[in-house]
Amino acid sequence: MNDRSKIEEPVSSEFARFNREFESSLRSETNLLQAAIDQILGATGKHIRPLLVLLAAKACGAVTESTINSAVFLELLHTATLIHDDVIDETKQRRGVPSLNAIFDNRVAVLTGDYILSTALIRSIQTGDMRIIGIVSNLGRDLSEGEIKQMETADERILDESCYLQVIYKKTATLLAACTSIGAISAGADDKQIAQLHEFGELLGYAFQIRDDIFDYFDASHIGKPTGNDIREGKVTLPLLYALRQPNEEAAHLRQIILNKDLTDEHIKRLIDFAKVSGGIEYAKQSMMRYHHQALEVLRSLPESAARNALAALADYIVTREK
Amino acid sequence: MNDRSKIEEPVSSEFARFNREFESSLRSETNLLQAAIDQILGATGKHIRPLLVLLAAKACGAVTESTINSAVFLELLHTATLIHDDVIDETKQRRGVPSLNAIFDNRVAVLTGDYILSTALIRSIQTGDMRIIGIVSNLGRDLSEGEIKQMETADERILDESCYLQVIYKKTATLLAACTSIGAISAGADDKQIAQLHEFGELLGYAFQIRDDIFDYFDASHIGKPTGNDIREGKVTLPLLYALRQPNEEAAHLRQIILNKDLTDEHIKRLIDFAKVSGGIEYAKQSMMRYHHQALEVLRSLPESAARNALAALADYIVTREK
Repeated sequence: MNDRSKIEEPVSSEFARFNREFESSLRSETNLLQAAIDQILGATGKHIRPLLVLLAAKACGAVTESTINSAVFLELLHTATLIHDDVIDETKQRRGVPSLNAIFDNRVAVLTGDYILSTALIRSIQTGDMRIIGIVSNLGRDLSEGEIKQMETADERILDESCYLQVIYKKTATLLAACTSIGAISAGADDKQIAQLHEFGELLGYAFQIRDDIFDYFDASHIGKPTGNDIREGKVTLPLLYALRQPNEEAAHLRQIILNKDLTDEHIKRLIDFAKVSGGIEYAKQSMMRYHHQALEVLRSLPESAARNALAALADYIVTREK
Repeated sequence: MNDRSKIEEPVSSEFARFNREFESSLRSETNLLQAAIDQILGATGKHIRPLLVLLAAKACGAVTESTINSAVFLELLHTATLIHDDVIDETKQRRGVPSLNAIFDNRVAVLTGDYILSTALIRSIQTGDMRIIGIVSNLGRDLSEGEIKQMETADERILDESCYLQVIYKKTATLLAACTSIGAISAGADDKQIAQLHEFGELLGYAFQIRDDIFDYFDASHIGKPTGNDIREGKVTLPLLYALRQPNEEAAHLRQIILNKDLTDEHIKRLIDFAKVSGGIEYAKQSMMRYHHQALEVLRSLPESAARNALAALADYIVTREK
């Protein structure tokens, strides 16, 4: 993260506490489960979600016990969904290290995901706040329904922007909105502030996922060719969606190729190139920046503070990051 | 169920309400998910868990809204774990019809399980009772940890009765104990009654799982040979555990065969036969009956009622059923 310190600064001691609590949140006496947990803890991510929780709370007042607890269970929930996603997509690598399903097998990965999901729910219950508990349980349903909807649109090759937005809403925007609104609730914010931070998180979630989807059109692992994993799995994301609705012959032809399903590496290269030359990347970036601007707009309605500025910096990071 | 009507009679109208609510508890606008849900609802089980909830509530007073809600979410939770179990064990049939992973694929099955699990949690939260919510969330963790522990003991071929009992405690007894104690809580029972019904459910859970495990040594599908699925997956259950600790040469030899892992059909037949001739089935049945007797003993401490008698009849059914 470029200006990571600027983002963490207003909650540095709280973030250190989060890190300790997160590390100690997963412990099992079952050796196989503990081995899986150790593997996960050895490859932690950028912790964007807990930072959102802490900063949202700070922007509304102060970080409480319930804020730390929420940051932990929301990161646990995110971790659980990543593990199941890796099983579903048969991903062999995650955050530069082998995924659980690659090291162990699908059985261990499914159950470890279930275990971490349950651990997350227990911690959410420990906040004792029915509003927080309610948000979390709906989240589990949204996240799984979002993934199933994505599979469905992929299987049926649905080329429709509103379907795409529904999927990224359920699979990403709801989680980020939960982070910011739960952060606000945990700090005792009033309903208006909670709603504002919810909206900020949701808009940021759209921007975040569009940024993620754009990565697939470029060479992420420096192997000399774009990743193209999404297209290979039938997921037509915004750049290609835009390109395929151009009224020209090439677009019509490529729409047929996608419908035929059996995509070769050659097809994938052609689709990526077409998305690029048709302005699909620019279109997606503009859409991302619209969400980003709206998110910052909402943020400005909150009182000025170091935490609010850090949230803005985090939003900037999300749209400018290079993975 | 032999004397099913005797068991259902004290809660017949409440059970009818449960059935309606359960059917309508799962609805999705995502076609693929709804197709998976329809498949599940078309192959419902014996509903032993909801009956335990309803009868436990009735035995402590009366069935409330919260009782019905609890019966629904506990059956949903059970359904979700069955779906994930089928993925883990690569089971192709469930309740006489193809499993979700067989009809669709592992991806749909994992996500549908996640979705139903989340739906269950939302409904548990709707009871608004923190004691119920707390039991449910711990349950999710116990069930997944139990399954992982079972895999671990299977992989390492652990031949130890206390490990076996730990596994069946986590994977079965905790859920049945949750059903009876939540039933009692939902009826406003006092702490003593809640504890008694918890113990009854737990003891019944052990008896239930031992009965289930014994089935594996017999010809369930009338194909002319015992199922042997557990042994094939490395799960050494009580009958064989008992047989293998006999101080004779055949037992020592078969322990070696199990440790070598690659079990042929011939090995499995030999292990099953050995469990039978060594008195393993009788030993397991005696163990099961001890749990059954203890469960009935606990039950007698509750005031006499039609619901209490139905719980006893349900306990009898559990140990005498032929699948």
